[in-house]
Amino acid sequence: MISADNPHFTSSVKAKMAVDGTSFDLKEFLAVRRAWVEESLDASIPVTYPEKIYEAMRYSLMAGGKRLRPILCLATCDLAGGTPEMAMPTACALEMIHTMSLIHDDLPAMDNDDYRRGKLTNHKVFGEDIAILAGDGLLAYAFEFLAIQTKGVPAERLLKVVARLGHAVAATGLVGGQVVDLESEGADNITLKTLNFIHAHKTGALLEASVLSGAELAGADTSVLQRLSTYAGNIGLAFQIIDDVLDVTATYEELGKTAGKDIQSQKATYPSLWGIEESQRQAQALIDEAKEVLVPYGAKALPLLGIADFITARKS
Amino acid sequence: MISADNPHFTSSVKAKMAVDGTSFDLKEFLAVRRAWVEESLDASIPVTYPEKIYEAMRYSLMAGGKRLRPILCLATCDLAGGTPEMAMPTACALEMIHTMSLIHDDLPAMDNDDYRRGKLTNHKVFGEDIAILAGDGLLAYAFEFLAIQTKGVPAERLLKVVARLGHAVAATGLVGGQVVDLESEGADNITLKTLNFIHAHKTGALLEASVLSGAELAGADTSVLQRLSTYAGNIGLAFQIIDDVLDVTATYEELGKTAGKDIQSQKATYPSLWGIEESQRQAQALIDEAKEVLVPYGAKALPLLGIADFITARKS
Repeated sequence: MISADNPHFTSSVKAKMAVDGTSFDLKEFLAVRRAWVEESLDASIPVTYPEKIYEAMRYSLMAGGKRLRPILCLATCDLAGGTPEMAMPTACALEMIHTMSLIHDDLPAMDNDDYRRGKLTNHKVFGEDIAILAGDGLLAYAFEFLAIQTKGVPAERLLKVVARLGHAVAATGLVGGQVVDLESEGADNITLKTLNFIHAHKTGALLEASVLSGAELAGADTSVLQRLSTYAGNIGLAFQIIDDVLDVTATYEELGKTAGKDIQSQKATYPSLWGIEESQRQAQALIDEAKEVLVPYGAKALPLLGIADFITARKS
Repeated sequence: MISADNPHFTSSVKAKMAVDGTSFDLKEFLAVRRAWVEESLDASIPVTYPEKIYEAMRYSLMAGGKRLRPILCLATCDLAGGTPEMAMPTACALEMIHTMSLIHDDLPAMDNDDYRRGKLTNHKVFGEDIAILAGDGLLAYAFEFLAIQTKGVPAERLLKVVARLGHAVAATGLVGGQVVDLESEGADNITLKTLNFIHAHKTGALLEASVLSGAELAGADTSVLQRLSTYAGNIGLAFQIIDDVLDVTATYEELGKTAGKDIQSQKATYPSLWGIEESQRQAQALIDEAKEVLVPYGAKALPLLGIADFITARKS
């Protein structure tokens, strides 16, 4: 178990990293974890009758992406002393749930997007009916998959993870955030409070569940979970701010989806509230704080520190 | 624990009931359980911000219905020696999942129904976007709810129930059945095999999960689960055959939804394959067999025997 009560708390992660003398290659770390996750996801859904629904689920599940949620889950499980085997089924379940949310968000009745990650969206390929069902199927299967496939974790802990994932997706999480997002579309005077609610729920809740479930599977204590919760909240919000910024500044080729979409649909965004520069500054402040709370864990936290930096540095 | 190895197996449930000398009032039994379930469902989802999504979920969840799945779950838990408290959170979760499937089935991209249980369908009241999200929210919350609210059941058993419910909804269950149902619409020469697949998955899977999860929560052994599985498969199929028959013979007032819908949309149905009379005969044969496998449990099985009869006798 990792103690969060290390008294040598410094505000400079870089100095701490130098003290420990550990070098860390984020790019390689992400590439290796991503390959593990891809392999597990690929094996998680074999195609059988009726093929169409399995193909539709696989189409979106295997469409690439950073696999950030599964990687965070694996990383916090490791930080708290667990193994990749303990976390991988939950990591896959998180990606299935995330994929479900993307498929449903892209539907004509919702954001009506034709492209996602440079490919046609699920309903453009398989039809709206199958896209709705593919999302439902992924969501339900996520819970079955983690309940059946997880080995070496006490059932009590696993049940907590089931509850945590459910909470992160339901009206208390992702679904609630999407509802307020839809309600805010085209509305004048979106407050910062509303915008924060949207993102804390629409993207933040599942990111937090990813970060906390990994540590929980490894049996982390409350003080660890509290620090990780701050980390997750901050990188989640920073991630969304940067997403909004990229929607304004990036091109279709960089994003792999229609750029400028938020402006077209008059969505409330951080750049529309703060402007580009202040948005970038706020994102950086959140990332700095996220890294600071992890200082007690020293070199063990290097992957999480790297991922935090990666969020502000990314171009897509 | 109830033993399934009672050697006094008779083919006549009535005779067995007379031997036991127990009287049973199905109507009262169903009314009492239904009131319990309604009360628990009502308490399960309080309305909070953003109110619209909670209201949308509650609109369909509290729209009435027979509450057959929760009642089956409570009944098999009791049969296997458990208490109502052990089964109620799972019973509510089953109804949340069932409600999700109805909301999504009614969507314009799916069956495009305007009425359900005599009320406007969810998307007609709240819009398609909210209806999709209300379904997602109910599905995710179902898993959180049973994981958090269940008391007095070992975590290992509860995890099995999580897996069973996930399996019953995913492409291996309800979702897979709906896909084949949509594919079969308007198609010539639907085989009996395809029709059976549709219903074993679209309605049968969740009914079986309702029957088995209750017994599982109480710690029933494999032989009990096997008999209950036969019971569930048979009443599930009989239920669907009678549903198809009622779609032809019943009126809007009796059904609370548009009658004759299957014929209009050229859906494959048992009456279209067998005619009305043969459909009714087949349903009765399934019910008879379902009751026969429960004979070893004597008076303990009375609620399940009554529910089996209720399925063929119902008018809506």
